[in-house]
Amino acid sequence: MRIGALEAGGTKMVLGIFDEEGHLLEDTKLPTRTPAQTMPEIIAYFQEKGIDRLGIGTFGPVNLREDSPEYGNITATPKLDWRNYPLLSTLREALGVPCAIDTDVNAAALAECRLGAARGCGNAVYVTVGTGIGAGICVGGKPVHGLMHPEVGHMLLKPNPMDPLPQGICPYHESCLEGLASGPAIARRAGTSGENLPDEDPVFTLAAGYLAQMCVNLIVTVSPERIVIGGGVLEREFLLDLIRRETVRLLGGYVQVPEITARIDSYIVLPELYPISGLIGAWLLGRDIS
Amino acid sequence: MRIGALEAGGTKMVLGIFDEEGHLLEDTKLPTRTPAQTMPEIIAYFQEKGIDRLGIGTFGPVNLREDSPEYGNITATPKLDWRNYPLLSTLREALGVPCAIDTDVNAAALAECRLGAARGCGNAVYVTVGTGIGAGICVGGKPVHGLMHPEVGHMLLKPNPMDPLPQGICPYHESCLEGLASGPAIARRAGTSGENLPDEDPVFTLAAGYLAQMCVNLIVTVSPERIVIGGGVLEREFLLDLIRRETVRLLGGYVQVPEITARIDSYIVLPELYPISGLIGAWLLGRDIS
Repeated sequence: MRIGALEAGGTKMVLGIFDEEGHLLEDTKLPTRTPAQTMPEIIAYFQEKGIDRLGIGTFGPVNLREDSPEYGNITATPKLDWRNYPLLSTLREALGVPCAIDTDVNAAALAECRLGAARGCGNAVYVTVGTGIGAGICVGGKPVHGLMHPEVGHMLLKPNPMDPLPQGICPYHESCLEGLASGPAIARRAGTSGENLPDEDPVFTLAAGYLAQMCVNLIVTVSPERIVIGGGVLEREFLLDLIRRETVRLLGGYVQVPEITARIDSYIVLPELYPISGLIGAWLLGRDIS
Repeated sequence: MRIGALEAGGTKMVLGIFDEEGHLLEDTKLPTRTPAQTMPEIIAYFQEKGIDRLGIGTFGPVNLREDSPEYGNITATPKLDWRNYPLLSTLREALGVPCAIDTDVNAAALAECRLGAARGCGNAVYVTVGTGIGAGICVGGKPVHGLMHPEVGHMLLKPNPMDPLPQGICPYHESCLEGLASGPAIARRAGTSGENLPDEDPVFTLAAGYLAQMCVNLIVTVSPERIVIGGGVLEREFLLDLIRRETVRLLGGYVQVPEITARIDSYIVLPELYPISGLIGAWLLGRDIS
């Protein structure tokens, strides 16, 4: 069986062909333009390669309520061309194969949980920190959906009194995680991209502090067995240690489990499947269609 | 089949005998003293009544990892007599019947989710606001455990600039939910118990604002289909409307689902099984032992 995998991102589409065992046989990338331009290219690729199933991990927000007539549609995205676009049904009809869909971060969470940095954990969170901040949550080995799907990026946090930009840069919320700790938030404070800054720059301490607050709030809410943090901002790997130390400090001894108090280095970790966690997750979604 | 239900609280133990259909045949209450004093009373009650199974919803923190040798033990509670007490194994051995255990708030969440204010919802959160703040979360119809279990009470929040007590009263954390919005936090600001204050008192606006921040953070994290808020503080029912309005305001139009934007009154709701949500949940835990 040949399984197609699509990681639909806001700037690029990643397409892969896997076998049933998870070998990536071939893959390609396309820029994300309008649906009228990009969808025919995606459909042509999968038609040409011949697939038996397709798994999709997509940017969101996306309707994931299986009982909804809009199931699998992109919803209120700022990418206006894609707003309300019926991604799942278009691919299903054009390709004539069983298709499954989830968010890109839920797909990545699934991949890290089954095969990557959180394997063996039924409950785990995968967070990506880049232009935006998003997260997927697995409980009982499966991605959480609920009313919509986890976002995490817009969690409200306590501003650091030393922060010159305590309200953040989110157009929707004052002092939300994404507005305080995303790549653009770091760049706004520094006046330049984070890539140009030394490790010692105080903007990194601020960002790590907010990501640690996020870890605390995830720990006291969904009690994950592991937190995986990836994305462009975490390519500065020294951040991970700042986040770990600050998480333990903020917990203040309240949570007494050795996985956190004694082994934080194996509790908050980098992804193992980066940068293709999402593509592998899409493969898993396709493979597991029942 | 007769099913015993125990809601083990920090100040009182509630014991009930149910039939298989959920009729509460009889119940009683005992003060929570030391295990040496209280446990024999609990055991004698259930022995005398004759039960085939027992479900337990307990105060925490409690070890809920089934693969742990300490499964079902109370852990780092400030109630020193109960610290590390093997609640589950003691009852199982003394009564010789199958026993199941979860936290009191997870039990209440299960009851509200199956039979109460969140029935029909696979994913829902139950929060109790009283002396402390705790929450149980159901995903896919089952309580979430993970590394420990949800707490929610110690979620870090953004202090309101108008708050005379922005750091809160929690001994572990600055500006956590419980330290800012629990009954004692309200009383500390007012200099008297909340019961003595008129609805217009500004401490209620502050508390409702923090509970709304909690709702936002729950919505963007676990995306529940409904949030049920109960407990002693919510006996002042006018608070619920303050929480609803502030939740919508804080979301800032980011989450575009009609369940929240158009129907917040049926999204954030009071419990329907209060004050015995926890006892009914303990019955469900006992009934569903496989």
